[in-house]
Parts: sequence; C-alpha cells; structure tokens
Amino acid sequence: MNNKHTGVDLKSVKLLAGLWEDRNRLLAHAIIPYQWDTLNNRTKDVPLSHAVENFRIAAREMEGVPEGTIFQDSDVAKWIEAAAYSLVFSPNEALENTIDELVRLIEKSQHSNGYVNTYYTAKGIEQRWTDLAMGHELYCAGHLMEASVAYYQVTGKRKLMDVMIRYADLITEEFGVEEGKLHAYDGHPEIELALYRLADASGDDRYKDLADYFMNIRGVPQKDGTGSIAKEGKKPKTRWLDSDYLIADKPIREMDTVTGHAVRAVYLYAGIADQYRRTREPELWETLKLLWDNLEQKRIYITGGIGSQSHGERFTVDYDLPPDRGYTETCASIGVVFWAWRMSLIDADSRYADMVEKEIYNGALSGISLDGKNYFYVNPLETKPQITAYRQDMEHVLTHRVGWFDCACCPTNIARLIGSIGSYLYSVSGTRLYVHQYIASEVDLMVGGSRFLLRQTTTYPWDGDIRFSLEMAEPQRFSLLLRKPGWCDGWEIRINGIKDDTYALEEGYIVLDRMWTTSDTVAVLFEMPVRVVQADSRVQAYCGKAALMRGPLVYCLEEFDNGPELQELLLDPQGSFELGKETIQSVSATCILFDGYRETISLDSLYAPMKERQRSKVRLKAIPYFQWGNRGKDEEMRVWLRSL
Amino acid sequence: MNNKHTGVDLKSVKLLAGLWEDRNRLLAHAIIPYQWDTLNNRTKDVPLSHAVENFRIAAREMEGVPEGTIFQDSDVAKWIEAAAYSLVFSPNEALENTIDELVRLIEKSQHSNGYVNTYYTAKGIEQRWTDLAMGHELYCAGHLMEASVAYYQVTGKRKLMDVMIRYADLITEEFGVEEGKLHAYDGHPEIELALYRLADASGDDRYKDLADYFMNIRGVPQKDGTGSIAKEGKKPKTRWLDSDYLIADKPIREMDTVTGHAVRAVYLYAGIADQYRRTREPELWETLKLLWDNLEQKRIYITGGIGSQSHGERFTVDYDLPPDRGYTETCASIGVVFWAWRMSLIDADSRYADMVEKEIYNGALSGISLDGKNYFYVNPLETKPQITAYRQDMEHVLTHRVGWFDCACCPTNIARLIGSIGSYLYSVSGTRLYVHQYIASEVDLMVGGSRFLLRQTTTYPWDGDIRFSLEMAEPQRFSLLLRKPGWCDGWEIRINGIKDDTYALEEGYIVLDRMWTTSDTVAVLFEMPVRVVQADSRVQAYCGKAALMRGPLVYCLEEFDNGPELQELLLDPQGSFELGKETIQSVSATCILFDGYRETISLDSLYAPMKERQRSKVRLKAIPYFQWGNRGKDEEMRVWLRSL
Repeated sequence: MNNKHTGVDLKSVKLLAGLWEDRNRLLAHAIIPYQWDTLNNRTKDVPLSHAVENFRIAAREMEGVPEGTIFQDSDVAKWIEAAAYSLVFSPNEALENTIDELVRLIEKSQHSNGYVNTYYTAKGIEQRWTDLAMGHELYCAGHLMEASVAYYQVTGKRKLMDVMIRYADLITEEFGVEEGKLHAYDGHPEIELALYRLADASGDDRYKDLADYFMNIRGVPQKDGTGSIAKEGKKPKTRWLDSDYLIADKPIREMDTVTGHAVRAVYLYAGIADQYRRTREPELWETLKLLWDNLEQKRIYITGGIGSQSHGERFTVDYDLPPDRGYTETCASIGVVFWAWRMSLIDADSRYADMVEKEIYNGALSGISLDGKNYFYVNPLETKPQITAYRQDMEHVLTHRVGWFDCACCPTNIARLIGSIGSYLYSVSGTRLYVHQYIASEVDLMVGGSRFLLRQTTTYPWDGDIRFSLEMAEPQRFSLLLRKPGWCDGWEIRINGIKDDTYALEEGYIVLDRMWTTSDTVAVLFEMPVRVVQADSRVQAYCGKAALMRGPLVYCLEEFDNGPELQELLLDPQGSFELGKETIQSVSATCILFDGYRETISLDSLYAPMKERQRSKVRLKAIPYFQWGNRGKDEEMRVWLRSL
Repeated sequence: MNNKHTGVDLKSVKLLAGLWEDRNRLLAHAIIPYQWDTLNNRTKDVPLSHAVENFRIAAREMEGVPEGTIFQDSDVAKWIEAAAYSLVFSPNEALENTIDELVRLIEKSQHSNGYVNTYYTAKGIEQRWTDLAMGHELYCAGHLMEASVAYYQVTGKRKLMDVMIRYADLITEEFGVEEGKLHAYDGHPEIELALYRLADASGDDRYKDLADYFMNIRGVPQKDGTGSIAKEGKKPKTRWLDSDYLIADKPIREMDTVTGHAVRAVYLYAGIADQYRRTREPELWETLKLLWDNLEQKRIYITGGIGSQSHGERFTVDYDLPPDRGYTETCASIGVVFWAWRMSLIDADSRYADMVEKEIYNGALSGISLDGKNYFYVNPLETKPQITAYRQDMEHVLTHRVGWFDCACCPTNIARLIGSIGSYLYSVSGTRLYVHQYIASEVDLMVGGSRFLLRQTTTYPWDGDIRFSLEMAEPQRFSLLLRKPGWCDGWEIRINGIKDDTYALEEGYIVLDRMWTTSDTVAVLFEMPVRVVQADSRVQAYCGKAALMRGPLVYCLEEFDNGPELQELLLDPQGSFELGKETIQSVSATCILFDGYRETISLDSLYAPMKERQRSKVRLKAIPYFQWGNRGKDEEMRVWLRSL
C-alpha cells in the first residue's frame, strides 16, 4: 500500500486505434449530441427529459415547473462531465460554447446562499434537506461537483467549479457534527466521492472533512433524532425499501456484506475507499476488504452485473443470481468501476483492475447500443421475449435497448465512463508505473521525477498481443508493472525482442524493474483461448451450465445466429472452438463458432417418461455479450448454456 | 357422449381402509373441528377469520362491523359443505347441531328480499351489485348454494337450501336479459356451477337459465354499458388485473386459451361444461376442448398446479412454468378437479379422470399438512428457503404450511374436496359403470335398472393391485369400465381369477362387458414402476431435468433426507430405483431410494474455468410431493432434478 499511488490525468492519455478509441469517437460525434438533444426534449418517441428546461425555469428564464424525476439535475451534470471528457478526445468549440451557456444557466439558478437544485427551487428552498432519504439533493450536488471538476480540469474554466464551491460551502455550513447543524446524510451516496474530487481540484480539504462526516454518521443513530436520513414521520414501507436498502442500517465500520440498492452501495464504498486513502484507518480497510470479498465471491454476475432483484434494485442474499430477472443496472456496473479503481490505488492487487476490466467490457458496455443511441437500464443474462415481456416479475427487463428512460440515470453515466476510460489505464506510485488495462494508447508521464512517453499498441480484447515502446530524454530506472489478467494462465514477455522470465509477479502484476532507455520495447503475449466457465454450485441457476469467455469478454448466444429455444442447446466443454469475425453496426468483434447440440423434446402433453436422448449436432455462434441486441429487436439471448 | 352420464351420490359410496379413508377420518376428527375453531377466532397465532362473527353481526345478534376479506362468507359456506360431507363418513350429532345453529344465523341474516351477504349488509344492501368485478357477492352466494345443497343431500334438512332458493329468486329477479334488469355478471365465477347444483337439487330449471345467462353475457359488451363487470369509473389497473384477468375479455364461445386468474378460470370452465351438458351446443364443446388442450399441453405443472405468476394469480403464456415462483394455488388445483370431472361426464375419455387423479394426489393434496391443521396457498415445486424468503418476486411462496391465511379460501376448499372424494370415483351411463379412481370403497348402485354392490379393495396409490367384487340379487349384463391410467404401460385383468384379454380399450377405459353375477371378482394389476419423467423442451425451466413419478404420484426431494444445495444433485435415468416405506406424521407412504450424484463446485470467486467433473455417488430419497414440508420447517425441496 502506498499513500502516493495516484492515477494519471486524463489529458495525458491519448487513445490510439482500437475499440475504445472507436467508442470515444462515437461519444464525441453521436452520443454527446444525441444526449444533448434528448435532454432538451428534441428526441422523438422517447420520454421527455425536461432536464435542461428545468434549469431554465430555475434560472427564471422560462415559466413553468420542473418535470421529470426529483434527481433530474444529475442527468445534466453527468452529461457535462461526459461532454468535458469528450473534449479531450475531440476538441469542439461549439460544444464548449454549449456547455458554457449551460453553466451560465446553472449559475443563474443558484440561490444567494449557494443552493442549486431545480426541483427544490420550485418547491421552495426552505424545504431543502427535508427528505434526505429520497430527495437526492446532495446526490445531485455531487454530480454537479464532479461535472464542475471535470470541466475545469479539461478546459481550465472554473466558473462551474466556483458555483459548486459556493454550494459546497453552504452544505458545509448546514451539515456537520456541531450543534445547530443538521446531523444527517443523503439517501443516495454520491456527494462523498464528489467532495473528494472537489477538494483535490480546489485544494480545500474542508470538503474531505464533510465527506468523511457524511460517511461517519451514516447508520449511526443520533440523540436528537436528526441522524435519520428519512424526514420525520417517513417510515420505510417494506423491507426492500428500508434503511438496509439505503445502506444506512449500520455504521460503515460495521458493514461486512454488500447490501441494499446496488448503485447506492458501490458509490458509498467508493467514498469509503477515498476516505481510507486519506485517513489510513485500519478499520476502514478491513471493512472495504470484507465488502469486496463478499461482492466478488458471492454477489456478482459473471458479466459484472450487480443487484439480483428489481424491487429495491438491490443486492439480495449470497449466491442468488438469477439470469433472467436480476437488476444488473448499467449504473451499478459503472459504480463498481469507481470502487474497484480506488481499491487499486490503495492496494495494487490485480483483482481490482480485473474487476474494472470485467465491467468495462461486459456489464457496463452492454448498457449502450453500438450506435450509441439506445440503452439498457437492466442488463439481463438471459431473455425469452414472449415470457420476459409478459411476466410481471420481469417487468423491469427489456429485450431491446431504448432511446431514453423516465429515470435516465444510465445513459449519461455510460457516456462519462466511455469518455473517462483513459483515466483507468495507468497509475504511478513512486518509481512504479502500473499498466492496469490493455487499451491502445499513449501516455505522457512523470515517474520518479522524469518525464517520458509510453506507447501501448494492441488490438486487445480481440487478442492478447500488446506492445509497449518508450520515449524519454535520458535512461532511468523504474518498474513497469503489467497486470497479468486473472483469466490468463499462459503469457510471455519479451524485452527488446528477447524473452524475459526473470520478472517477479507481485499481487498479480508482472514487475519489470530495470534501467529503461528510449526506444526500449516490451512485448507481452497473453494467451487468449476460449474458456468454458462454470459457476460455484451454490449458485443454483448455473448448476450444470457453462458460459463462454475469451479474454475479458463474456459471450452470449442470440436467436439471430442460433435459432429460437436456446434452452435446448448444449455445449461440449471438451469441444473445439473456432474464432470468427462478426461485424455488427460497424463494430467488428471476434465471435466464437463451435459444435454444440440441440436437444428438442416435443411432447403432446408437456410431460412424458424419458426416452433415449435425441441430440442433434448444431453449429453455434457466440458473440460478445456487449454486442447483443444490436440486430433487430426482441430475440432470445442467453449467456449460460447447458453443458455436457 | 351421453346425455345421461351421471355421477354417483356421495352417500352411496363408503370408503374402505386406505389413504382416502384415512384423510376422511382426519377430516371428521381434526380438520372440521380445527377449521370451526379458526372461523370462530379461537385458534392462536393465526390471522383472525371473523367469518362466523360476521354472520352474527349481520343477524343483529352482535354489535360490530364485518371483518376480513369481502368474500369472507364463502369460508363459512365451504366449511358447511365440507362438514356436511364429513357427516357421510362419520355421523356426528353435535356437528349437525353446530351446523343447524349456523344455518339459523344465516337465515336470520337474510334480508326480506332474500339477500344474504354480511359485507354488503353492513355497507347497506342498496350498494349491492355495485362492484361486481371485485365484490364477490355472487361468488359468496354460489358457495352458500353449494353448501345448502350438500347439507340437504346429506341430511335431508332443507332450511339452508330454502334460504338460498329465496336468494336465488332475488338474483333471478335482478339479473337477466330483460330490460330493467342488470346485464352483468360476477368477477369471480362460481355462481354458475352452483346454480346448476341448486337447480338439480330443487328441480327448478330457472336457476340453470340464470347460470347460462351469466355465462353467455360474460365478455359481451352491452349497449347500455352495464355489461361491464366493473362498476362505473372503475378501470383495470394493469394488464394483470384487467378484463383478461377476470376472463371477461371475450365471449366464452370465442375462448381458446386458458387465461386470467387461474381459480376464476377453471370455475368458469366447469360452469361451461355444466352448460354444455344441458344444451349440447357444439360451439361450447369446441371451446371446452380448445381450453382443455391448451391447459394440458401448455399451461400446467407436472403436479397439476396452474397459474404461473403471483401477480394476478394467473395463467401467463404457453410453456411458462417456473418451479420456484409459480402460483399453483391449492384452490386452482381443486377447480381443475371440478372442471375435469364434468368433462368426464361429457366425454368419458380417461384424460379427464387422469387429471382428477393428478390433482387429488399432488397439486391439491399438498395444500394441507398431514395433520390437517396447516395449509399451503401456493404449492411451489422448488424452494430454497434463504432465497425464497428473501426475494420480493417470491413473496407469495412460503416454505412451510401455516395455520390460516388472511385470504383463507384454500383450507376449507381442500376440506370439501377431501370430504367429497367419494363422488369422483364412479359414474353410470346407461348400462355402463365407470370406475374412474382406484380408491378402496364400496358403492351401492343402480345400473340398467338393477341394484348391486361393487366393492373395490386396493392400497393404491402405493401399488397398482385392485380387486373388485360384486354382489347383486340376480345376474345382469352390463359393462364395467376401468380407467387405464395414462401413466400406465402394462396391466393385466383377471376375471374370477382367469386372465382376460378380450376386452376393448375405449378412450382409455378397459371395457369389461358381460353377464355379471354375484361374487364375481375382477382383479386388475397396473404395473407401477418408478418413472423418470421429462418435460417438453419448450418449457425452459425443465430442460436437462427430470422428475420422479410412480403411479399418479409426483415425488420430490427434501433437504431433510438429502442434505442442502439440492441443485447440486443429479439423477441417472438409467439407474435403479428401490421402494421403501416412509411414515411421516403417521401417514405411511412409499418412498423411492436411488443412487444419484452430487456435483459440488466450490470456487473462490464464483466463476472459474470448468475442470473435470467431480461427481460423488450419493444415496438419495424421494418422497411423495404431497408429503413435503411435514418434518420441520423451511428446508429445501425440489421436484425437478438435473439428469445425466
């Protein structure tokens, strides 16, 4: 563990040709404009957002009352943040002007005491903080703070950050341990990690104190009763929407199980990780490790999806991971990235960057269509449209992506993840340079006081061949640490063309410690066979089943390639798997072709004595999970197949 | 098809030693007294019924307002019906006095116009018929009519039937095709089949006209708008509670799919069968056949459970039969018996009596504990208590029977089924005597104008050996038709000890047509091996799985016998199965012992590449499904096992 282990400024990372450079081009040219139109109610046939209009109303430039969810402001905030990141990839003066105009509106909507929130502006800001459990005020504040920091860091423009500093100052005045202040916290964590970012950007550590305060008071009953996140008289309705749902049933230092609303949970845990990085309080680290182990070992889907139940959009119990009606919200997978990344910076164990990788290629990326304009809120692992569309207990599961949602937290969230992907690739700790993700890029870095350029070229995740080259003014000694992916069993390192096996393997990282000089090259080859993966048998849904993976990618079968009634299919784990190319919506991917079996049992009366199995050999095709649902609507899809 | 194919009066059937005689003893000595106590709020730790108290209030012998569901009266009615049947098995003067006193109360609660209903009496009977969709007035009336007929037929006492005749006359005056009458029908079918029973008992066919009217108007829009079952302004809330839920989305003659609320559906279909038996209208028979085929081929659980979804307690779509969260209500299985029995009397095809058999030994009988005092509303095919108890989408599934329910339709319903079991065994059509069910009994019969006694001795369903003997004054020619159970592939008939294979097999019945004389005997041996049963592969839940059956019984595995994590178990369809004896709560049953496999996969991180299968051979025990949940609480149970 290292106090000074830090990430790399997004602006120092230049994406090179590859999947993520392509997704960032889409972000700049399609996603950001599409989402801006939608936030301005200009997209047809989707739920109206009203989010920008709400700020116009709050700024008194338009008549009306704000519409949409109580946390609609956060959609604007996340869009600004995503748009800011897109400017790194693709400078765009018109977009910057648009953002500046939006910032002007937000500033104009700010009250003289610093308060910013379109919903409570209309309701009357004397009503502020009266429904902390569900009012989402501090949540919206947090997203606006994150947006302000992002825009400042990308453009140097600090107007929005100044607005948010004034707001943060108000929050600091009104919440805190002192008598007379509110002893309370938000039902939806977000403000905590946002205050950390704002403190780092502004240099004002009071915001970290406030964040720590919110985390420390969470779940702690207060003598005067104000500690309750719910305003007086508001009682939780059911066990799924109680303090456990809000992750407020116990103090953070007593938590040992990932629980409650999945997005709230992982945002909070990310905040706790920030707090631990500052305080180094051992109890917090114990908590974080217990929570992580519980997530990783008992409560996460193979895709990285979390939240096994729609009601409460939440974690349930260990090993409860139904493929067809989990919640597996796109935002929750994104939140896991936030948490995992912070864990990496605390403890450079590859399990955390493995988790980032799992999410960005599967559970998060599946949340957006290949054309960038359609979204999943819920990312199921199995759909059967006629049943999925009918059953009330699958009401939350869509079998095709849609252009927007009434509650549209996910689209702008996946946009900001795509735009910020460069910030999850590298980190520096003293003279150690970590490479966490294999994404074609150049990074301009300072390590041990010297500046140099590292270039990474690869077509990962389509193959495991990664080349690094170095440029620097003069030779210097440092360690290059390359994550050995958790899924990988065989690899080879070549330094300047010569095979090297003298390196150490530390916490899952290959440590190349030497005097480096300009034009040095490192080639890494991670063997990337198709893997037939099974689940722990305590997960009842996957007993006797297997999923296909290759590299970090989870694969799935679609009706489009394999016909209907996918439950009739079997795979042979001993079979051979061929790779092919599948281009969907101009995104090329490696697909997997293999011989499997179809076992059709057609009976007159549903049930009959078992006869000899009639299995016909069939050629099957699996595509990356993130690509599913991009070829026509409402077909069957399945990640887990029955296995011989 | 035969217009004069009729069942046999319950009083002519005497149960002999066996499972059903035992259950009827339990009915008389435990179930009826327990339910009476409970209906009178005298049972501890269960939801208070108030059902008898409500009649006391309506009779103005007590102050207060009725409590419980809007259809609480029907619990009293079904209890009277069950108690009446129990008097056939076990005459009981004290019980008769109790019923007579209850009848006095009901009569006293009757309004001068004939109206009887405790809820609307309190509300004001000018409010009657204002919420036909959900008010359940005609439903309660129907159950009281059935009770009155049963009590009259068993005891000859017609006071309650006279009360109900006055009520039926009121309904006849107020509903009907004529102008000025209400053109409407009840949201919950029941009155239809009840009016048929009342008409048969009273000899007044006007009640059949009224029943036909209710069925003919169902789903038919009326010009004046009164055809809607919902009172004005009441709109269905969701697609699960709309006119489709109430099986009122189309006229009965256009129905082709079993749909909507499962209990409502099968009660209606039973009424349609009554109507067809009277009218012989071909269109009704076409409808009944389409509905039956859809039920039998696409929408029923192996246990006979129906209703795949909790929301709406209803049928969903073809092949959607999840084992862990279906509704499979006890009442719905009982309703299938009503419908199937009437189908038998229309068309003596063994499929209908096979269905009666499936229900009485599985889906219905599992609804009551072996001690008679605990009940399932929902009869799942698979439970995993820690998950079942937690998940909101399994909120309706209990993993143990309970003493009563807030909505307690099932306990008294299963009681009346047990008490009336004797009426489902035999039927007579001209000179044909049908034996539909193999239950040890004596029946005193008229066939072709002559009286005789048929004695059936058997330990069925524990073995397939059934002996019949005849007593009669003088020899007579008639056909004895013995159902060849649908599950049975091998059988043997001996007449007076001599093997016979000259018989015809007609629609699944073995036809023994000859001159019979006293002391003639027939021995039938139905081979009863353990059957490994599979499902049509369009039912995704059961692909790769198998269930064990023997004779009519579905078997299940409990954690109690086989340890937890039942999903890890596999059975070998080629394996050998031994029979054993298992006595639970003094009910002896044949259990199945067999070698299976347990495949435990214990991983650190939920998912890992598949290694060679580690299967350990384990000795497993299956018990009849109806016996499950009678040995301690909240353990895992599973009908469908993975199959090699």
